[in-house]
Amino acid sequence: MEIKVVQNILKANDALAAANRKQFRDKGVFVIDLMSSPGAGKTTLLEKTAERLAGEIAFGVIEGDLATAADAERIGAYQIPVLQINTGKGCHLDANQVQNALQYFDLDSLDLLFIENVGNLVCPAEFDLGQHTKVLLLSTPEGDDKPDKYPVMFRQCPTVIINKVDLTPYVPFNLDKVRASIRRIQPEGRILELSCQTGQGLDAWIELVRQETKRFKAELQASAS
Amino acid sequence: MEIKVVQNILKANDALAAANRKQFRDKGVFVIDLMSSPGAGKTTLLEKTAERLAGEIAFGVIEGDLATAADAERIGAYQIPVLQINTGKGCHLDANQVQNALQYFDLDSLDLLFIENVGNLVCPAEFDLGQHTKVLLLSTPEGDDKPDKYPVMFRQCPTVIINKVDLTPYVPFNLDKVRASIRRIQPEGRILELSCQTGQGLDAWIELVRQETKRFKAELQASAS
Repeated sequence: MEIKVVQNILKANDALAAANRKQFRDKGVFVIDLMSSPGAGKTTLLEKTAERLAGEIAFGVIEGDLATAADAERIGAYQIPVLQINTGKGCHLDANQVQNALQYFDLDSLDLLFIENVGNLVCPAEFDLGQHTKVLLLSTPEGDDKPDKYPVMFRQCPTVIINKVDLTPYVPFNLDKVRASIRRIQPEGRILELSCQTGQGLDAWIELVRQETKRFKAELQASAS
Repeated sequence: MEIKVVQNILKANDALAAANRKQFRDKGVFVIDLMSSPGAGKTTLLEKTAERLAGEIAFGVIEGDLATAADAERIGAYQIPVLQINTGKGCHLDANQVQNALQYFDLDSLDLLFIENVGNLVCPAEFDLGQHTKVLLLSTPEGDDKPDKYPVMFRQCPTVIINKVDLTPYVPFNLDKVRASIRRIQPEGRILELSCQTGQGLDAWIELVRQETKRFKAELQASAS
């Protein structure tokens, strides 16, 4: 009974996610679902992205949290279009919440949309939002055992960012072990290592966002012609 | 429909949790549900607890993770009775899983049982396991906005441990702000500040475990006489 209902919920979500994906395609908006444990640095990464890419790539942000509009306020300070979703007790965003949020954006004016999911290394992995790619942040203080312990999430995300590498002198974290664990789960995956605090490694992230957005646009044009 | 099913699941869980609680009482075992984000330091805290209390208080540990037996192996190295539950895609432990796990323990020989829940700051808050108290770990690298952003979890836990205080020179974390946020959500709550890496503040935790276990036993005896 429980399993059947969960399957129905996921099926309904998938249908809405497909509709979102079609809308993003029609509007030419590349969409990244950003996920991590609580406090791994998603919002800070978006702030750094705003500092570097605002004016070059028009992007918006959907923020997901159980409570507060704190993250939306942080992003809004960069004059980035942003909407906060509060899930109450909800442990993840779903496609319907994203659909409802889209009316608050002028999608015609955007090239890129980040969806910052609820901080949770489990549940968000199961819910398609209509995004084109998923990016996972793992912060070094969380420990080097996380890929092995949360394989469902790591399998879903072709890009893993190891954040807070400036803290490696102070926390037990074996970078080689983590790289090997991620490679086992996701052999073709991309691994970036950076620190939002020091700026180390941020260039590669910014270049990735730039190239992926460009590639999406080019594919759209190629398929339209 | 979805809401009704979720209510039914929670109701069924509550009945099993009540049965667990009765069993713990009958056996004189004090039970602590330990929760946090992934990588906040739950297993390390239990290792430190084993170092200090093994031989003095007979305790066992139930470990919850999506995958691997890594945590059970770490605890087992201290000759502590331990069972690993792997939840697969499951984002929390439930009362039924705990019930099934109990057959692997000799409860008559235990005074205390720790249940280390799945690393998740959302879902475990909703599922009663039959524990007598809940302890929440918040690690400083997660940031000082977590109580406000995850109020459901913080409301559930009368004891909050701020872990990894040795990292405060390196991460943006305002202790006063966090204390005030926790007090707003849980005015009667207890806040401990410690570092499992340096040992700072561990004495207060060990003394709390000692006193709470003693208090539970004394209450049992008083109600029996």
